[in-house]
Amino acid sequence: MAASILVWAHLDSRARDLIKQTATDDRVHFADRNHPSALDLEKLAEAEVVFGNIPAQLLPTCQKLRWMQLESVGFEYYNNLLGDFPNLTISNLKGMFEWPAVETALAGLLSLGRGLQRLIPAQGEQSWIELAVRPETRVLRGRRVLVLGAGSIGQRMVRLLQAFECETHVFARTSPDADVRTPAELAAHFAGSDVIVCCLPKTPATLRLVSRPLLQSMKSTAVFVNIGRGSVVDEAALIEVLQQRKIGGAVIDVTLTEPLPPGHALWKCPNTVLTQHTGGGYDDELLDKARLFLKNLARYRNGIPVLNRVDLQKGY
Amino acid sequence: MAASILVWAHLDSRARDLIKQTATDDRVHFADRNHPSALDLEKLAEAEVVFGNIPAQLLPTCQKLRWMQLESVGFEYYNNLLGDFPNLTISNLKGMFEWPAVETALAGLLSLGRGLQRLIPAQGEQSWIELAVRPETRVLRGRRVLVLGAGSIGQRMVRLLQAFECETHVFARTSPDADVRTPAELAAHFAGSDVIVCCLPKTPATLRLVSRPLLQSMKSTAVFVNIGRGSVVDEAALIEVLQQRKIGGAVIDVTLTEPLPPGHALWKCPNTVLTQHTGGGYDDELLDKARLFLKNLARYRNGIPVLNRVDLQKGY
Repeated sequence: MAASILVWAHLDSRARDLIKQTATDDRVHFADRNHPSALDLEKLAEAEVVFGNIPAQLLPTCQKLRWMQLESVGFEYYNNLLGDFPNLTISNLKGMFEWPAVETALAGLLSLGRGLQRLIPAQGEQSWIELAVRPETRVLRGRRVLVLGAGSIGQRMVRLLQAFECETHVFARTSPDADVRTPAELAAHFAGSDVIVCCLPKTPATLRLVSRPLLQSMKSTAVFVNIGRGSVVDEAALIEVLQQRKIGGAVIDVTLTEPLPPGHALWKCPNTVLTQHTGGGYDDELLDKARLFLKNLARYRNGIPVLNRVDLQKGY
Repeated sequence: MAASILVWAHLDSRARDLIKQTATDDRVHFADRNHPSALDLEKLAEAEVVFGNIPAQLLPTCQKLRWMQLESVGFEYYNNLLGDFPNLTISNLKGMFEWPAVETALAGLLSLGRGLQRLIPAQGEQSWIELAVRPETRVLRGRRVLVLGAGSIGQRMVRLLQAFECETHVFARTSPDADVRTPAELAAHFAGSDVIVCCLPKTPATLRLVSRPLLQSMKSTAVFVNIGRGSVVDEAALIEVLQQRKIGGAVIDVTLTEPLPPGHALWKCPNTVLTQHTGGGYDDELLDKARLFLKNLARYRNGIPVLNRVDLQKGY
């Protein structure tokens, strides 16, 4: 029987065309997620399958919904729905942003070490600053790095850092790949690391896990990188240690408020590279999202469990 | 017997102090290389050992010189001295710039892919450009990369690129590590690669080896990286393909003229990151140069061949 599918995801024409051409046996409706029409909301109420991140407050209207394929890895929007929708399967894009996210983290980290955050603006001014930059350059090679989170992004981060001959440690509460587990171990590693890379998602358990005391314990040369979620960090404390140059610098992809408003203190923190939540992007991103949805749709229609099912109870 | 040593290298106080404290059995004179005094030139004429890159035109005055420890990897300044000083040993800093050079290359390459050459200036303007940048982002992972040169920098580059799961090929005329050797093979790889990283030194054989036809054959999305020497590239042709957007971009550490003068076309080429010959730098650079000199001095005094001897005849 044909499934009733509502597409709520942000897609481009290539991705939409792929879905239209592939899911020909189903009734597919593309909603305007920014300005949903009455018809869009009617189709949502009838949908058995949704592709995209439906606003949590609309979920109670979806009485027939059985499976929602998220257009993100993060599923923090649904954390408080636990138990409300026992028959709903949610799947995410786990692994899809692994490479772009770690490459953005490394681009920022290497740029700070090699002075590109000074060289790139100097290029715009046609100003040769070799002798000013060169004594301040550093190498990542051989540094001691703490990675927070042992998901696919954290694991890839560790493997790449090992190619730079870094000494890597991983914090996670349950993953067998982690060697830092307790608050005491976390504190010791914060104080002893040259680089700390946060790859943690937004969950109640990760809220301000990177606390003021941890940030203040960091080495004066250490760099903090966040490609997880802004909520994981005490942002006011981060701004403080950066402004007071108590740490060496930061690479920040995610912030508490996005877009970051003009005048926000983070814009002007010294030795800080802001990558504006572009960490997950890549040229075929939207097409790959559609491909994964269609792959999972084939499984769903054949009674095979979809890939990347999210367990709201377990979290990360 | 105490050796007469002239230090001509650019050093800081830490590096000078290390030499003074270590070479206590020798007569060490520190010259002012920017404004050499009459005494400096007199000491140079008497020196058995020199640490630093003596201007080639001064070498004929050095009748007692037996060993010159360069303060660089490049030794292009002495290429035309072949045969003039049969008893002179020259050693360089081979391997010392391996990590900073490859990290600068990767910082630039990843910055281009992840949009940091747009995000860093936007940060200065407090402008959130996520949605403009994100669709233009790319990953390095899995790209086909041609590395020109199989010295320590080229070899390290290859190993790091393999951690990014790149398909790597190496051009060199004689190295057993190279799989691209002939002009025809080089042309085929220029046309087929996503990234080309030049790690070649300045020698007569490498002069404009990266020629106009090779540059014009590159893929429209391909990125050219130069951490070798500016002389290896037809710079006018490089500027042309960048300005006309016939290639995807460039990361340029070395140029024909350094410092690059204001108004030079390279400053404003699109999708180009200029790292202003900072590629070799790192915080302990000058101290490490002194350490290698002292290590080689101990070998020299004990009749053991010094490390990193340069063969002017063989070149690279």
